[in-house]
Amino acid sequence: MLDICILGTGGGMPVPERFLSAALIRYQGRKILIDCGEGSQVSMKILGWGFKTIDAICITHAHGDHIIGLPGLLMTMANSGKTDPLTIVGPKGIEKIVDGLRVIVPELPYKVNVIENPKETINIIDDKGIINLNAIELDHSVPCIGYSFNIKRSAKFISEKAIKNNVPKKLWSKLQRNESIEYEDKVYTSDMVLGEGRKGLKISYITDTRPITTIPAFIENSDLFICEANYGSDDDLHKAIKNKHMIFREAGILAKQGNVDKLVLSHFGPALANPEDYIENAREEFEDTIIGRDRMEFTLKFT
Amino acid sequence: MLDICILGTGGGMPVPERFLSAALIRYQGRKILIDCGEGSQVSMKILGWGFKTIDAICITHAHGDHIIGLPGLLMTMANSGKTDPLTIVGPKGIEKIVDGLRVIVPELPYKVNVIENPKETINIIDDKGIINLNAIELDHSVPCIGYSFNIKRSAKFISEKAIKNNVPKKLWSKLQRNESIEYEDKVYTSDMVLGEGRKGLKISYITDTRPITTIPAFIENSDLFICEANYGSDDDLHKAIKNKHMIFREAGILAKQGNVDKLVLSHFGPALANPEDYIENAREEFEDTIIGRDRMEFTLKFT
Repeated sequence: MLDICILGTGGGMPVPERFLSAALIRYQGRKILIDCGEGSQVSMKILGWGFKTIDAICITHAHGDHIIGLPGLLMTMANSGKTDPLTIVGPKGIEKIVDGLRVIVPELPYKVNVIENPKETINIIDDKGIINLNAIELDHSVPCIGYSFNIKRSAKFISEKAIKNNVPKKLWSKLQRNESIEYEDKVYTSDMVLGEGRKGLKISYITDTRPITTIPAFIENSDLFICEANYGSDDDLHKAIKNKHMIFREAGILAKQGNVDKLVLSHFGPALANPEDYIENAREEFEDTIIGRDRMEFTLKFT
Repeated sequence: MLDICILGTGGGMPVPERFLSAALIRYQGRKILIDCGEGSQVSMKILGWGFKTIDAICITHAHGDHIIGLPGLLMTMANSGKTDPLTIVGPKGIEKIVDGLRVIVPELPYKVNVIENPKETINIIDDKGIINLNAIELDHSVPCIGYSFNIKRSAKFISEKAIKNNVPKKLWSKLQRNESIEYEDKVYTSDMVLGEGRKGLKISYITDTRPITTIPAFIENSDLFICEANYGSDDDLHKAIKNKHMIFREAGILAKQGNVDKLVLSHFGPALANPEDYIENAREEFEDTIIGRDRMEFTLKFT
């Protein structure tokens, strides 16, 4: 079971009822924050999931509405007693940006590792790979990346199979953790005790981009797809093209092409007072579309 | 007439009902912002005084709760169409901090002048000195300065005096603006048409400090004295001493010593849920004390 909370649904600048785009994933007591605009901390405080157990912060790009909350949050995490290392992931150039913003929090009681524009899968929570992260380069006015998070689920243990394969009982639990073991001159492997792999969970987060052709494969089969939708009306397509954003309909088309389970729209421009007015534009393309609201929570369960 | 709005009354970190300490002065259409913590922009948006006409931002010190909102605000001011220069005032070292935070807004359509730890009076709005600023070094864990703003009021024009001094009528309005004029081989000065100088307005802003002995003279006769009061209870004096802050009572004593007109308490620590519970501690020292609330506005009139 995994929880995710949309901390803010605004784009560009905070407005009273909408903080800036950010989301927080919670899984097995650990946390990953995606983006950190001004106000993210306030939403996190209201949410009450705590600050100490944030393992990673994934920044999409270095526009203020996605990163300005970072130095304040780093300080709050320090004040919360965090000493475990923190991983910050971001697009090309993010290390310099983080260094600049840290001018007000130069000393932290935890180590900060920065990963720029990852090309391969990262085990983001720990080296056992309970949450894997992938990134995709997007099409915005500055280097910008999208993310998908894959929560693996181990295959089911089948005692009948273990017995049939003559696996000594004392090795059963170790082999369940996908290891191979040499015991009394014989090698035992996990496939001797485990069944078929089971479906995990996948969350994708795409913001501040045009709907480029690489996105559908990247978000494919996501349980939850959080997507920017800066403009509601189809008539604003020219603005979306000019400012490298999307209209609601384009987000819906991506969701359909990516065969996702649920689409949540976010990153509404300040001029978009009532996103609900335009929801049909997205639903005409993809039925299971939701208008994101600040601090909306989702719980995803393994099936 | 001058307006001032307390944008945020929180210290340390933002909490749902309290943004971080900041205040905005509005006078003759121009604006001065004091401090810029996370959330200041949201309060400013709710307030609706606009972003384009901010002439100066006075930062007390480079702790996150007083400065993190700066880069986002600089961007919003750019988006609002500002092209006039901006002056940023702050303690020693502020230029390096501003440069660091500007990593996400390197290009701005207006010039930014930074003034570190001013030792003399600054004409903060324009060279006519309609608002003068003075700074005082405070006692905090990092370089920190307090501010006072003096709004000058020109002397009253007295036509009888002008007639008596044989000042040609065509020079009256120019001399009213405190100039001296040579006309037909004779020098006319403003004191030939103006009466006694009239009392202006004074606002003082002191935050993040122990109550040092130089403060009362600095804030003397302020119409409004905004002062930090991080701790409510007298029992928290040891915490105030350790963390270089003040308890309510100390703010009240400063107000009394400085002979101010009105004291507004602000910068309440996150642990101080109900500042009203402790107001008597300040009022026992200085009767006209108010607990600041986010977006509380004051209008000061010339007497």
